[in-house]
Amino acid sequence: MTGEFADLDHDRRRRTGVPEVVLGEGKTPEQTLALVAALRRGDPTGPALATRCPDAVLAAAPDAFPGEPVTADPLGRTVVVGDPPTPAGRTVVLTAGTADLPVARECATTLAVLGVAAELIPDVGVAGLHRLLGRLDRLRDAHVVVVVAGMDGALPSVASGLVAAPVIGVPTSVGYGVAAGGLAAAASMLATCSPGLVVVNVDNGFGAAVAAARIERQAAGG
Amino acid sequence: MTGEFADLDHDRRRRTGVPEVVLGEGKTPEQTLALVAALRRGDPTGPALATRCPDAVLAAAPDAFPGEPVTADPLGRTVVVGDPPTPAGRTVVLTAGTADLPVARECATTLAVLGVAAELIPDVGVAGLHRLLGRLDRLRDAHVVVVVAGMDGALPSVASGLVAAPVIGVPTSVGYGVAAGGLAAAASMLATCSPGLVVVNVDNGFGAAVAAARIERQAAGG
Amino acid sequence: MTGEFADLDHDRRRRTGVPEVVLGEGKTPEQTLALVAALRRGDPTGPALATRCPDAVLAAAPDAFPGEPVTADPLGRTVVVGDPPTPAGRTVVLTAGTADLPVARECATTLAVLGVAAELIPDVGVAGLHRLLGRLDRLRDAHVVVVVAGMDGALPSVASGLVAAPVIGVPTSVGYGVAAGGLAAAASMLATCSPGLVVVNVDNGFGAAVAAARIERQAAGG
Amino acid sequence: MTGEFADLDHDRRRRTGVPEVVLGEGKTPEQTLALVAALRRGDPTGPALATRCPDAVLAAAPDAFPGEPVTADPLGRTVVVGDPPTPAGRTVVLTAGTADLPVARECATTLAVLGVAAELIPDVGVAGLHRLLGRLDRLRDAHVVVVVAGMDGALPSVASGLVAAPVIGVPTSVGYGVAAGGLAAAASMLATCSPGLVVVNVDNGFGAAVAAARIERQAAGG
Amino acid sequence: MTGEFADLDHDRRRRTGVPEVVLGEGKTPEQTLALVAALRRGDPTGPALATRCPDAVLAAAPDAFPGEPVTADPLGRTVVVGDPPTPAGRTVVLTAGTADLPVARECATTLAVLGVAAELIPDVGVAGLHRLLGRLDRLRDAHVVVVVAGMDGALPSVASGLVAAPVIGVPTSVGYGVAAGGLAAAASMLATCSPGLVVVNVDNGFGAAVAAARIERQAAGG
Amino acid sequence: MTGEFADLDHDRRRRTGVPEVVLGEGKTPEQTLALVAALRRGDPTGPALATRCPDAVLAAAPDAFPGEPVTADPLGRTVVVGDPPTPAGRTVVLTAGTADLPVARECATTLAVLGVAAELIPDVGVAGLHRLLGRLDRLRDAHVVVVVAGMDGALPSVASGLVAAPVIGVPTSVGYGVAAGGLAAAASMLATCSPGLVVVNVDNGFGAAVAAARIERQAAGG
Amino acid sequence: MTGEFADLDHDRRRRTGVPEVVLGEGKTPEQTLALVAALRRGDPTGPALATRCPDAVLAAAPDAFPGEPVTADPLGRTVVVGDPPTPAGRTVVLTAGTADLPVARECATTLAVLGVAAELIPDVGVAGLHRLLGRLDRLRDAHVVVVVAGMDGALPSVASGLVAAPVIGVPTSVGYGVAAGGLAAAASMLATCSPGLVVVNVDNGFGAAVAAARIERQAAGG
Amino acid sequence: MTGEFADLDHDRRRRTGVPEVVLGEGKTPEQTLALVAALRRGDPTGPALATRCPDAVLAAAPDAFPGEPVTADPLGRTVVVGDPPTPAGRTVVLTAGTADLPVARECATTLAVLGVAAELIPDVGVAGLHRLLGRLDRLRDAHVVVVVAGMDGALPSVASGLVAAPVIGVPTSVGYGVAAGGLAAAASMLATCSPGLVVVNVDNGFGAAVAAARIERQAAGG
Repeated sequence: MTGEFADLDHDRRRRTGVPEVVLGEGKTPEQTLALVAALRRGDPTGPALATRCPDAVLAAAPDAFPGEPVTADPLGRTVVVGDPPTPAGRTVVLTAGTADLPVARECATTLAVLGVAAELIPDVGVAGLHRLLGRLDRLRDAHVVVVVAGMDGALPSVASGLVAAPVIGVPTSVGYGVAAGGLAAAASMLATCSPGLVVVNVDNGFGAAVAAARIERQAAGG
Repeated sequence: MTGEFADLDHDRRRRTGVPEVVLGEGKTPEQTLALVAALRRGDPTGPALATRCPDAVLAAAPDAFPGEPVTADPLGRTVVVGDPPTPAGRTVVLTAGTADLPVARECATTLAVLGVAAELIPDVGVAGLHRLLGRLDRLRDAHVVVVVAGMDGALPSVASGLVAAPVIGVPTSVGYGVAAGGLAAAASMLATCSPGLVVVNVDNGFGAAVAAARIERQAAGG
Repeated sequence: MTGEFADLDHDRRRRTGVPEVVLGEGKTPEQTLALVAALRRGDPTGPALATRCPDAVLAAAPDAFPGEPVTADPLGRTVVVGDPPTPAGRTVVLTAGTADLPVARECATTLAVLGVAAELIPDVGVAGLHRLLGRLDRLRDAHVVVVVAGMDGALPSVASGLVAAPVIGVPTSVGYGVAAGGLAAAASMLATCSPGLVVVNVDNGFGAAVAAARIERQAAGG
Repeated sequence: MTGEFADLDHDRRRRTGVPEVVLGEGKTPEQTLALVAALRRGDPTGPALATRCPDAVLAAAPDAFPGEPVTADPLGRTVVVGDPPTPAGRTVVLTAGTADLPVARECATTLAVLGVAAELIPDVGVAGLHRLLGRLDRLRDAHVVVVVAGMDGALPSVASGLVAAPVIGVPTSVGYGVAAGGLAAAASMLATCSPGLVVVNVDNGFGAAVAAARIERQAAGG
Repeated sequence: MTGEFADLDHDRRRRTGVPEVVLGEGKTPEQTLALVAALRRGDPTGPALATRCPDAVLAAAPDAFPGEPVTADPLGRTVVVGDPPTPAGRTVVLTAGTADLPVARECATTLAVLGVAAELIPDVGVAGLHRLLGRLDRLRDAHVVVVVAGMDGALPSVASGLVAAPVIGVPTSVGYGVAAGGLAAAASMLATCSPGLVVVNVDNGFGAAVAAARIERQAAGG
Repeated sequence: MTGEFADLDHDRRRRTGVPEVVLGEGKTPEQTLALVAALRRGDPTGPALATRCPDAVLAAAPDAFPGEPVTADPLGRTVVVGDPPTPAGRTVVLTAGTADLPVARECATTLAVLGVAAELIPDVGVAGLHRLLGRLDRLRDAHVVVVVAGMDGALPSVASGLVAAPVIGVPTSVGYGVAAGGLAAAASMLATCSPGLVVVNVDNGFGAAVAAARIERQAAGG
Repeated sequence: MTGEFADLDHDRRRRTGVPEVVLGEGKTPEQTLALVAALRRGDPTGPALATRCPDAVLAAAPDAFPGEPVTADPLGRTVVVGDPPTPAGRTVVLTAGTADLPVARECATTLAVLGVAAELIPDVGVAGLHRLLGRLDRLRDAHVVVVVAGMDGALPSVASGLVAAPVIGVPTSVGYGVAAGGLAAAASMLATCSPGLVVVNVDNGFGAAVAAARIERQAAGG
Repeated sequence: MTGEFADLDHDRRRRTGVPEVVLGEGKTPEQTLALVAALRRGDPTGPALATRCPDAVLAAAPDAFPGEPVTADPLGRTVVVGDPPTPAGRTVVLTAGTADLPVARECATTLAVLGVAAELIPDVGVAGLHRLLGRLDRLRDAHVVVVVAGMDGALPSVASGLVAAPVIGVPTSVGYGVAAGGLAAAASMLATCSPGLVVVNVDNGFGAAVAAARIERQAAGG
C-alpha cells in the first residue's frame, strides 16, 4: 500500500544501527501517518519517529495510533509512537539562543528514540560567555557535544576549543539579513579554527542526533 | 620570539586531547618553521605537525631540525618532526578519485601523528559502485569512516547508508565548472539523505582527522 | 482573443516533434484555460497539456471542457484534455524519495501525452542502496532513465554508473537548509563523476519528459 | 602499481557502453600516463583517452607509447592512444563563438573515440542569427545536437526550438564579469523556455560526448 | 504632512526630464495615496503615477481622487491619476512569454505617463523564433526596443542582433528552479554576446520605461 | 521559569554598557513577554526593550504590564516597558526612502532606551542629492551618523564623504530583484570608496543603535 | 581560412549600425590577428577593432598590418587598424577612480571607432562629491553619460539623478573583498533608486560604447 | 599632471578629519608614486600614505622621496612618506591568528598616520579562549577595539560581548574552502548575536583604522 509512494528501508537498523525514520516535510499527512504505521509494524520493538511534521500530522497522530503511546511535540515538530528504550551514554545539547530550541528539541527527541541519554542546556551564546564557562564541567563529562546555533554560528567553535569530545555543530536558520536561512552560521562552523568540530545541515537536529548516537555506540564498545 | 606574531596554545592537548598544530598557509616559511620548533620544545613527547605547507617549508624542514626525525610529504603538504606514537583504533579513509589523494594524505598523516591506526582506500567513487561494495567488510569493521570526495560529493552519502560507524565527509576542490572550489560537494554532503554523516570544510583532511581521533578516543573509553 | 497575451506556437510539433504546452504558473487561470482550449482546437489529434497548474485551474478544468476527456492531477499539478496516444518505448522514472513524487508525476503525465511508455519506481534513494540494486534489470532494459532527486542529488550519479542508456537527472526542491530550492542537488548532478548523465532545471519533470521523448524518437528510428 | 592511487573500472564499458577514461586534471603527469597505459593494456581493442591534460602530459604522450598511434591535441587538451573505431551515427556539435572551440574539440575527440560520426560547426552565436539559420538542414538531419556556448548561453535554447533531436547544452567558462566561470550560461540553459534541452557541467565537452554516444546507441537500436 | 515620512523631489522633472514617481511597495497604503496626492498637487500639468501598488491601493485609488481621471491596473499594479500627455516617439516592448506581461504593462503605462508612444508585442520567446522574425519590420522602425524576458533571458540577446536601435533588457522573476527570482535571466542579459544591449533590474518595467523615455527625448532633439 | 528556554544575561549592562534586550523573532509570544518581565524585574532602573515583535506581542504588551509605562510601535515593531532615561548626545539617523522607516524607527527607539538623543531625517536618497546637501549642517554637528538605506545602498558612502563623525550604514531589505533581501545594499556599503563607514546586518536598526550608543559613551568620556 | 574557427558577421553593420568586432580574450593571438585582417578586408571603409587583447596581440599588431594606421593601447587593451571616422555627438565617460581607467579607455576607443565624440573625466567618485558637482554643466550637455565605477558602484546612481540624458553604468572589477569581481557594483547599479540608469556587464566598456553609439544614432535622427 | 588619471581630494581632511590616501591596487606604480608625491606637496604637515602597494611600489618608494622619511612595510603593504603625528587615544587591534597580521599591520600603520595610539595583540583566536580572557584588562581600557579575523570570524562576536567600547570587525581572506575570500567571516560578523559590533570590508584594515580614528576624535571631544 505504501509501496505506491515509498519503499521503506526496514533493513536500515541492521546495517547502520539506526532505524528508518519518516521525514514529514514534502509528504501528505496521510503518507506520513501510513509510513509511521508501517515502520511500527515492521519493527515493534522500538518506537517509530516522524520529524518535521506539519500541524495536520501533529494533530492527527494521537488518534491515529489507538492503544499506543504517542508523543507529538509542536515545538520540535516530532511524532513518536511507542516507548523509547532505556537511555545510556552522555550527550550534551547546547543552544546559542532561545530561538534555536525547536532544532535542539528535534535532536533531543531523536536521541531519546535512539536510546541515548541527553541533557539540553539552552541559551549559552557567545554574547555572554560566562554562561558557557559556567557549565564547563558538564561539557567535559560528555561523550558527544551537539551545539545548535544560528546567527553568527560562533558557539560551536568556542565549545570545540574547550572539550576533548567530538563536537557536532548544527547551524540554524535563526536570524535575518545575511543570517537568514542559516548559511552564514553553517559557513562559519565549517570554516572553524577549532579542529574537532563537524557539521550537519542547517536545522538538522535529527542528523546530529543520529551522528551522536553512532559515536555513543562506539563509546559503548561498537 | 614567536610571540610577535603568534601565541601558541600549549595547553590545547590537555583541554582537547589534541595538541596545537601549525597551519602553514598564510604564514611566512620562517614563521612556520619557528612555530614547529616551538611546539617541539613545548611538548617533546609527541611529534609536531605543520599542514598546508608551501614548497619552501617542505624543502627547508629536513635541515631545520638536525638530529630529529623529519617527514615532509609533498603530496599531502605536511611536515612532521618527531616520531608518531604507536597507532591504535580502526579508522578507514576512502577517496572517490585519485585527485582526492592529497587531502586523504593530509588526513592519514594527521591520524598517524595523533596515534590513530588508519587504512587509506583510494578511488572507489560511485561511477563504479562495485569498488565500494567490494570493501564492505573493511568498512564495517571501522570505528570511524572518513570519506574524501570532490565533484558530486555523492560517495559519503552512499557510504553512510552502509555502515553503523560515524561517517565524516570531506569535500574536496577537485572538479571544475559548478564543482570548482568544492562547494557543490560540500552542499551535497550537508544535504545528505543518509543520516549519520557529518561534514568538515572543503579540503580539510586535517579537521576530519582530529574529529576522527576524538571519536576513537571515545571508542577507547574516553 | 488569446492573441492579446499569447502567440501560440502551433508549428512546434512539426519542428520539434513535441507540441506546444501551457505553463500554468504565472498566468491567470482564465489565460491558462483559454490557451488549453486554443491548443485543443489547433491540434485535435493529440491531447492538450497544462503544467504547474494552480488549484483554480485544476478545479475548473473538468467543467471547462464539456464532452472531452479531462484529467486533472493535483499531485503532479497537470491538466490533460483529450486521450493520450498509444504508448511506445521504454522509459523508467526513478525517485529518490516519496517527496519527489510530484515532479515524477509531472514527468510521467507528460510522457503519456507524448506517447512514451513509462514506468515510475519511487523511493530508491542512496541511503538504502539495495532498493536500487534490486531493480537493475528493469533499469538496464530502459531506453532512457529519468532520475528525480532532491537533497544530496546523489542518485542520478549512481544510476548513471550502472546502465548504458542515457540518464536524465531532475533535481528537486525537496530538502531544507543547504538543500532548499534544489540548487545543491542540481550542482551535484552537473558535477557528476559518472559520464552520460545530463540535467534539466530543478523540479522540471516536464522538460525531462520532452528530452526523453526526443531520445525515444531516435530509438524508434528518428 | 596504479593500485596505490587508483582502482580502474575495467568493467565500465560492459555496464555503460563507454570505457573508463582518465581525467588528467588533479593527477600528476606520471599518474595520468600510467593510467592510460593500464587502460590500454586492459582493453586493447579500443583507444585509451585522457582529457583535460596539462602540458606535461601532452608533451610526454608521444614518447610514452612507442609503436602506438598517439594523438595529443593541445587545443582540446586530449591524448588518444590507439586507433578510433569506424564512426557511425550523426551528431552535430555547434559553438557560439571561436573561444568555445577547445570544449567542442574535447567533445569531438571523445565522440571519435566512442565511434560516433560528428560534424563541428563553429561560431554561430545568436548575435548573428543568420549563421545558425543557414545550417538548419544539417541540424535537422542530426540524431543529437550538442551546443557549446559561454557568455549568455542563449544558443542552445534557440537551437532546441528548431529541431526534433535531443539537444545537449554545454556551458563554457568563456566570458568575463557575470559570465566568468560559466555559471550564467549554465543557469540560462537550465532555465530554458525551449523543452528538450538538457545540460552538462561547464566546459564538460567530454560528458556531452558520452551522453550523445549513449543516445546514438539507442538510435542504432540499443 | 508627508514630510514625516517622505521628502518629495518636486524638482526631479526639471533636472532629469522625468517627474518623481511613488513606489508603492514597502509603504503603507495611506502613505502611497498621500504621496500621489502631493505629487498631483505639486505638478498638476502631468499625471501622477504609483507603481508596484498592493491591492489596497488599487482598490482605494478611484475613490481617493474624486473628480480626477484615475486608472488602476491590477495586472501591471499601477495607479495613474490625471490624463497622460499626447504620445510621441516609437518604442516597442516585447515579451518572451505571457507571464512576463505584468512587467511589460508597468513599462507601457509608465511610457504613456511620460508621453512616449509604445507598442506591446507579447509572447515572442526564442522557443519559436518565427514569432520574432515575423515582426522584424516593426522592430527595425523603433527608436528603442524594450525586451521583457524571464527564464533563460535569451530573447534580448537575439533581438539586439537584429536591430540598430538601443535595446533594453528587463529580466523577470518568471520561472522556477535556477530561474526563480530572475537572476539567471539578468546574468544572461548582462553576459550577452550581442553588443548594444543594456539591462535594468529584475521586474523593473518602470526603470526600463524611464530609460526609454530619456532616449526618446534624445531622438526628439534632446 | 524562563530558565527552561533562556539564560538572561543580567550582567551585560555592567560589562558592555548596554543591557540585555529580547529579540522577539523566533520566540513564542509567551516567551518574549516573560523575558521582558524578567528583564524588568532584574533591572528596574531602566526600561526593558523587545525588538522584531510579532503582532501578538505588540497587541498583548500593554495589558501584560499593568501599572507600567508601555510603548508598542507597530512600525518599528518594538515594545518598551518603563520610562527611557534623559537623552544625551547627538546622533542623526538618515533614511534613503520612506520604506526604510521601520528600520530607522527600531534604531531610534533603541537609542531612546539607551539614553541617546537622536534626530531622524527620512527620505534623503541619492536620486535627489539636494535633499541631503540641504541638511549638511545638522549632519556635521552629529557625534554619530546612522544611514539606513536599501536598494543601491549608495547613501552611506555619499554621507561618509561629507562628515568627520563615524558613519554606520544599515542596509535594508527594501527593494526587489537583485536588491531583494538587502544583500546588494550591504555589499555596496562594505565595498565603499568612502573610508570611515562601518556596517551592520541588513535591517539591524537595533545593532546600529547599540554601536552608536557605545560611540556616544566614548564621546561623553568613556 | 578563418572559417575553421570563426564565421565573421560581415552583415552586422547593416543590421545593427555597428560592425563586427573581435574579442581578443579566449582566442589565440593568431586567430585574433587573422580575424582583424579579415574584418579589414571585408569593410575597408572603417577601422577594425579588437578588444581585451593579450600582450602578444598588442605587441604583434603594428607589424602585422604594414602600411596601415595601427593603434595598440596597453591600458585599454585595444587594437585599432584603420583611421576612425570624424566624430560626432556628445557622450561623456566618467570614472569613479583611477583604477577604472582601463575600462573607460576601452569605452572611449570604441566610441572613437564608431564615430562618436566622447570626453573622458576620471576620478570623480562619491567620496568627494564636489568633483562631480563641479562638472555638472558638461554632464548636462551630454547626449549620453557613461559612468564607470567599481567598489560600491554608487556613482552612476548619483549621476543619474542629476541629468536628463540616458546614463549607462559600467561596473568594474576594481576592489577587493566583497567588491572583488565587480558583482557588488553591478548589483548596486541594477538596484538603483535613480530611474533612467541602465547597466552592462562588469568591465564591459565596449558594450557601453556600442549602446551609447546606438543612442547617439537616434539623437542624430535614427 | 596627475590630472590625467586622478582628481585628488585635497579637501578631504577638512571635511572628514582624515586626508586622502592612495590605494595602490589597480594603479600603475608610476601613478601611485606620483599621487603620493602630490599628496605630500598638497599637505606637507602630515605624512602621505599608500596602501595595498605592489612590490614595485614598495621597492621604489625609498628612492622616490629623497630627503624624506619613508617607511615601506612589505607585510602590511604600506608606504608612508613623512613623520607621523604624536599618537593619542587608546585603540587595541586584535588578530585571531598569525595569518591575519598583514591586515592588522595595515590597520596599525594607518592609525599611526592618523595620530592614534594603538596596541596590536596577535593570535588570540577562539580555539584557545584563555588567550583572549588573559588580556581583558587591556581590552576594557580601550576606546575602540578592532578585531581582525578570518576563517570562522567568531572572535569579534566574543570580544564584543566582553567590552563596552565600540568593536570594529575586520574579516580577512585567511582560510580555504568555504572560508576562501573571507565572505564566511564577514557574514558571521554581520550576523553577530553580540550587539555593538560593526563591520568593514574583507581585508580592509585601512577602513577600520579610519573608522577607529573618527571614534577616537569623538572620544577626544569631537
